[in-house]
Amino acid sequence: MKNKNLIVLNFKAYKESTGDNAVKLVKICDEVARENNVNIIVCPQYADIYRISNEVDIPVFAQGIENVKYGSNTGHVLPESVKEAGASGCLLNHSENRLKLADIDALIQKLKELGMTSIVCTNNIATTKAAAVLSPDYVAVEPPELIGSGISVSKAQPEIITGSVDAVKDVNKNVRVLCGAGISTGGDLKSALKLGTEGVLLASGIVCAKDPKAALLNLISGLK
Amino acid sequence: MKNKNLIVLNFKAYKESTGDNAVKLVKICDEVARENNVNIIVCPQYADIYRISNEVDIPVFAQGIENVKYGSNTGHVLPESVKEAGASGCLLNHSENRLKLADIDALIQKLKELGMTSIVCTNNIATTKAAAVLSPDYVAVEPPELIGSGISVSKAQPEIITGSVDAVKDVNKNVRVLCGAGISTGGDLKSALKLGTEGVLLASGIVCAKDPKAALLNLISGLK
Amino acid sequence: MKNKNLIVLNFKAYKESTGDNAVKLVKICDEVARENNVNIIVCPQYADIYRISNEVDIPVFAQGIENVKYGSNTGHVLPESVKEAGASGCLLNHSENRLKLADIDALIQKLKELGMTSIVCTNNIATTKAAAVLSPDYVAVEPPELIGSGISVSKAQPEIITGSVDAVKDVNKNVRVLCGAGISTGGDLKSALKLGTEGVLLASGIVCAKDPKAALLNLISGLK
Amino acid sequence: MKNKNLIVLNFKAYKESTGDNAVKLVKICDEVARENNVNIIVCPQYADIYRISNEVDIPVFAQGIENVKYGSNTGHVLPESVKEAGASGCLLNHSENRLKLADIDALIQKLKELGMTSIVCTNNIATTKAAAVLSPDYVAVEPPELIGSGISVSKAQPEIITGSVDAVKDVNKNVRVLCGAGISTGGDLKSALKLGTEGVLLASGIVCAKDPKAALLNLISGLK
Repeated sequence: MKNKNLIVLNFKAYKESTGDNAVKLVKICDEVARENNVNIIVCPQYADIYRISNEVDIPVFAQGIENVKYGSNTGHVLPESVKEAGASGCLLNHSENRLKLADIDALIQKLKELGMTSIVCTNNIATTKAAAVLSPDYVAVEPPELIGSGISVSKAQPEIITGSVDAVKDVNKNVRVLCGAGISTGGDLKSALKLGTEGVLLASGIVCAKDPKAALLNLISGLK
Repeated sequence: MKNKNLIVLNFKAYKESTGDNAVKLVKICDEVARENNVNIIVCPQYADIYRISNEVDIPVFAQGIENVKYGSNTGHVLPESVKEAGASGCLLNHSENRLKLADIDALIQKLKELGMTSIVCTNNIATTKAAAVLSPDYVAVEPPELIGSGISVSKAQPEIITGSVDAVKDVNKNVRVLCGAGISTGGDLKSALKLGTEGVLLASGIVCAKDPKAALLNLISGLK
Repeated sequence: MKNKNLIVLNFKAYKESTGDNAVKLVKICDEVARENNVNIIVCPQYADIYRISNEVDIPVFAQGIENVKYGSNTGHVLPESVKEAGASGCLLNHSENRLKLADIDALIQKLKELGMTSIVCTNNIATTKAAAVLSPDYVAVEPPELIGSGISVSKAQPEIITGSVDAVKDVNKNVRVLCGAGISTGGDLKSALKLGTEGVLLASGIVCAKDPKAALLNLISGLK
Repeated sequence: MKNKNLIVLNFKAYKESTGDNAVKLVKICDEVARENNVNIIVCPQYADIYRISNEVDIPVFAQGIENVKYGSNTGHVLPESVKEAGASGCLLNHSENRLKLADIDALIQKLKELGMTSIVCTNNIATTKAAAVLSPDYVAVEPPELIGSGISVSKAQPEIITGSVDAVKDVNKNVRVLCGAGISTGGDLKSALKLGTEGVLLASGIVCAKDPKAALLNLISGLK
């Protein structure tokens, strides 16, 4: 039976995950996901969504979208455009791309209309709870100071994770909680799950690893 | 011999030019360009660049890029990502996506490094001249109040075009001048060329036309 | 006994409420507040806070602040600077100046630290509830399409007000609810209070009135 | 006879130059300017402009303004509001508050209409030349990497200053050139003037000095 927990891999704008490199990396993710029966979601750059979604079966999410409609919006990221390119979900409000409250609300609704999954990133317990009120599918709490630090949130600040899980239960039981920041090993993932999350959001720990496949296999060992 | 003047078609975020529709439209552009030996450049949304550049031979430009480098830039538009997807040039500073002066400068340099063509959009003679100082390949002057108006800049405000052409010659003879806003017919294009430009930037006049091919053929009649 | 309900008058950037005109207007507000024993709060532009707070006894709030700290932040609005100038509270996230979720959270905390009152503006029931989770002193729900319309939210969309009041009670009983958009008469205010709010946020209905004092007297008749 | 060169002191958002501290500091500047017959311009935060311009005779400039008109612009910085508060000029496009090209152009024109002096900050020779095309009163070139560094641009990168002076002469002889970044001593100022500028823009070297008056006296020794 497939493990229901999520591994969400944010490709960011690393050289190791742009263009041809993104295709190589996503094939590794696809292979690891199939062979191990785990849920891996990849989040490539806008320009890579189409080619990646045509290469693999695992879900492809956009790294963001903008609160714009069909029309005169040169240079902006239309939600419908990433859907047509093959995205089945989207990160919103990542710490490197924070959104206005009104736009988070509007975009969660827009993703629902488009039949896409929403993951709202947040920075602490209070904003996690506020985001949960807006009924996204997932919230992903990530203390910004630990992102890319190599220090796992599940070890350094477990109280943020349990606090977020409790806060979300308090206001909206339908929202599932992920965590991120500094996650890279199976141990990090195992701790995150024990603390009540249903998965993790990570990036450099896998994308910039010398051997991404080995890193991914190490990570998913935490699911067992 | 191929006409050296440019027709730059900005796909914006119209329903008629997103995803599958973008592919249909670009095939029309490709066909018209080949059959008539004219230069048509298409500017689709980020998520459509890859599939479009794999369908046609005409140049594909991005609608914009951001002043970010390889690394932790979730949700941002890395110049290298649109290049790898197949873009050979880029619009900068479109009226729907204005940029900071320092970013226009940095992005023109970045496009040069990547071997890509730059078109900087501007709103009047003064900003056209300022942009020309930064040595892009093209400037495209577009009075914002005429964009999407159906009233052609080449008829309504010819003095902005001639003023821009003169101002650019004055500071940087290597920069070529396009114009836009309200352009749709062959007559509009012919006027634009007579006023000293080397082509036009347009969008809705073609993209939202009932018969885009007929509209495009009408437009290019102005090249003769 | 003083009526505990609030009239929050946003001066925006109207000519009628800038500089010397702001001083004239605030004196009217001060007079009406004293003579009628009602709570009127004025929100002038940054550059007018100091002179206005030195002219009158009624509370002066800033129209906004930025999430910046003491240091190298040229051109930004430091919370401490508006406090030192005399502001005892602040609007946050007004529809003409929307903020990122993480900044709303940080600024509510910062205002608490500074001993200042926070009013978070919101656009619908969902964002009102999300904002209430962050524990501001007040939320002020304002459907953007009615702002400046002359059509009162308390008449046109009473369900947004009652829905907001209920939603806030549900998540945070300490937060008080105001409403705004199209409010100008005593009848508008009376309806707003009946629907469960503790006051209103308004602007053009008073600021741009031919006779602001008469307009203000008409408005506060709704408190009785 | 009064030295025509300018010392522009940017107060930024330092604790040492906010509110009451800003008033103390500006009195020192005023005293030094009068006693030594030199031009010192101070740039306090928006909320401090009124009280400072009422305390001293030296010119007070705003740290920025926004491209907005009288009307519904809550939380934005209306040019007319800083003028009414006492500002006689304004910094534009400071590295901590970069502006869009079209806004720099519009705001230079707006300042002219209001009879105010404009100083456009720039980051290199190319953007200095582009800004000069827009006809501000001054450009102030400041390599961002040296701002607040304690390493003077006039010593570390003299070629940026001479290059900027030459570039500006080339396109617009009416624009005067200042420089900034790392300037603090009389020697720094003297070098800047020798390289062809008409003054300097500086901040922390004076504002955060243990003895601002001594620092200012040291600085202006470079004018002799």
